[in-house]
Amino acid sequence: MSLRRFIPLFDRVLVRRVIPEAKTKGGILLPEQAQKMPNEGVVVATGKGLRTESGEFMPCAVKEGDKVLLPEFGGTKVTIDDQDLFLFRDSDILGTLE
Amino acid sequence: MSLRRFIPLFDRVLVRRVIPEAKTKGGILLPEQAQKMPNEGVVVATGKGLRTESGEFMPCAVKEGDKVLLPEFGGTKVTIDDQDLFLFRDSDILGTLE
Amino acid sequence: MSLRRFIPLFDRVLVRRVIPEAKTKGGILLPEQAQKMPNEGVVVATGKGLRTESGEFMPCAVKEGDKVLLPEFGGTKVTIDDQDLFLFRDSDILGTLE
Amino acid sequence: MSLRRFIPLFDRVLVRRVIPEAKTKGGILLPEQAQKMPNEGVVVATGKGLRTESGEFMPCAVKEGDKVLLPEFGGTKVTIDDQDLFLFRDSDILGTLE
Amino acid sequence: MSLRRFIPLFDRVLVRRVIPEAKTKGGILLPEQAQKMPNEGVVVATGKGLRTESGEFMPCAVKEGDKVLLPEFGGTKVTIDDQDLFLFRDSDILGTLE
Amino acid sequence: MSLRRFIPLFDRVLVRRVIPEAKTKGGILLPEQAQKMPNEGVVVATGKGLRTESGEFMPCAVKEGDKVLLPEFGGTKVTIDDQDLFLFRDSDILGTLE
Amino acid sequence: MSLRRFIPLFDRVLVRRVIPEAKTKGGILLPEQAQKMPNEGVVVATGKGLRTESGEFMPCAVKEGDKVLLPEFGGTKVTIDDQDLFLFRDSDILGTLE
Repeated sequence: MSLRRFIPLFDRVLVRRVIPEAKTKGGILLPEQAQKMPNEGVVVATGKGLRTESGEFMPCAVKEGDKVLLPEFGGTKVTIDDQDLFLFRDSDILGTLE
Repeated sequence: MSLRRFIPLFDRVLVRRVIPEAKTKGGILLPEQAQKMPNEGVVVATGKGLRTESGEFMPCAVKEGDKVLLPEFGGTKVTIDDQDLFLFRDSDILGTLE
Repeated sequence: MSLRRFIPLFDRVLVRRVIPEAKTKGGILLPEQAQKMPNEGVVVATGKGLRTESGEFMPCAVKEGDKVLLPEFGGTKVTIDDQDLFLFRDSDILGTLE
Repeated sequence: MSLRRFIPLFDRVLVRRVIPEAKTKGGILLPEQAQKMPNEGVVVATGKGLRTESGEFMPCAVKEGDKVLLPEFGGTKVTIDDQDLFLFRDSDILGTLE
Repeated sequence: MSLRRFIPLFDRVLVRRVIPEAKTKGGILLPEQAQKMPNEGVVVATGKGLRTESGEFMPCAVKEGDKVLLPEFGGTKVTIDDQDLFLFRDSDILGTLE
Repeated sequence: MSLRRFIPLFDRVLVRRVIPEAKTKGGILLPEQAQKMPNEGVVVATGKGLRTESGEFMPCAVKEGDKVLLPEFGGTKVTIDDQDLFLFRDSDILGTLE
Repeated sequence: MSLRRFIPLFDRVLVRRVIPEAKTKGGILLPEQAQKMPNEGVVVATGKGLRTESGEFMPCAVKEGDKVLLPEFGGTKVTIDDQDLFLFRDSDILGTLE
């Protein structure tokens, strides 16, 4: 079953966590990076976004393929195609990594 | 008494939980899937949706027949026609499964 | 004193709880139905509904005569004409039973 | 000093509690009515109502002279002209009794 | 320094507490009036009122010189010209006494 | 470094606390004034004010040079040019002293 | 990897903390400055700002290069290019230092 199967709802963002490249090249390191879950990730899919009072959707601030910096806590673990992925709210993602 | 008998109110969604197909084909697995309640389900019926300040209903993001991924917690159990079904709020459903 | 005497205010709904018909015909059963209070009821009267910022009333989603499914908890008991009736908020009623 | 002296502010409602007429004629009885404070009352005076963002007052849902059913708890006791009266918020009053 | 010196901000109301006139003439009595602080007062000054989202001020419901009934609790004590006065929020004052 | 260096953000107000003039002339005294921090102050600088949903700033109710009465609690201490100053929210300041 | 790599989301502000210049020239000192983290900083990058109900972004009150005074608590530590930087919400920054 390809990953396209799962479409998050509303302002949820599906993220695959990645280990930052080689340490020496100065990847983005969160304190005590190695032991803990990597805080970098790539956006796999996003929902339509938050819905306003008038019923319109405000698109998520991140989009598929974006590299993102994740908060230390939070995120719902979802295993899709035997891969561990994580659902975050759009507003909980710290920033994007160009 | 056919299932049509029960119409959820507002943004409630009536869901029948389903066990994901064969494990090997890579169904959607939530951690330790087997022991716990299946987190996949099918939408049986939805309410008109949330009501805005102006009195209009914002339709639910999911519709009857959608395959959905459910949060690990929450949901109100309702037994209809001797079947255990579950009521979720539209905004608590994680995503849809195409 | 006829039941017409009591008119709920705002989004309150006055409900008479009913025991679902014969079990075999598949009435709506909430878990361990028999011992606990029946969760099915009939709407006896409704208030004008919630009031918006502009002062208009948004009518209740249920109306007099509707069969409804009630949440397991909540509801204020009111004894009218020696009958035990219950006041629920419109938004707390789970759904209607056609 | 006549009762007119006291005018509640905003959505406050001044109520005199009354003991429901003779029991046999089926007054409105709240569980274990006799021992506790009567939950029936008559509206003595109301404030202008809640104020909206635009500064207008939304009149109270009840008016002077209405018979009302009061919640079991809440209400601020005020003694006026040696009479014990009670201040309720308009939205806390359960309903009116015609 | 005359009392004009102090102008409350926003929806604050400056009140001087007064002991209700002679008991027999039926002043407004709160339960166990004598021992506790008098709950009657006179408005000394008011702020411009609450500010709405559009930046306008909604004038206080009470004005200088009004006789008011105060809640049993709350109020910030301020000593001005060696007099103990009290600051209340406009919305916490129970009502006016004509 | 002159005091102009520090500009508070949003609805923050920078205040220098002052000891009220001679006691006999009836300065504004808060209970047990001497031992505690003086509750009178002078506004040194204000932010642009709170921002509304439409992005405009609602100017602070106090302005530079105003004499103000401060709440007993709250306020963030900031030492500028070796002087202890305090940051208050505009809405926490009790009133102005003409 | 240059610092431009990281773009904060929404109203987040990326700040590098700085030790205020020489003490004698009267840098901005927060109480017991030396032992604790410096409360002065320079803005490295800002997000687009808070999003309103209509979906527009309200730009941050601070911009890249601004010298800012930080609250004693709060801020998320992020290590970029082996430098410790901190993420604050725009509304938590106390003020700017010209």
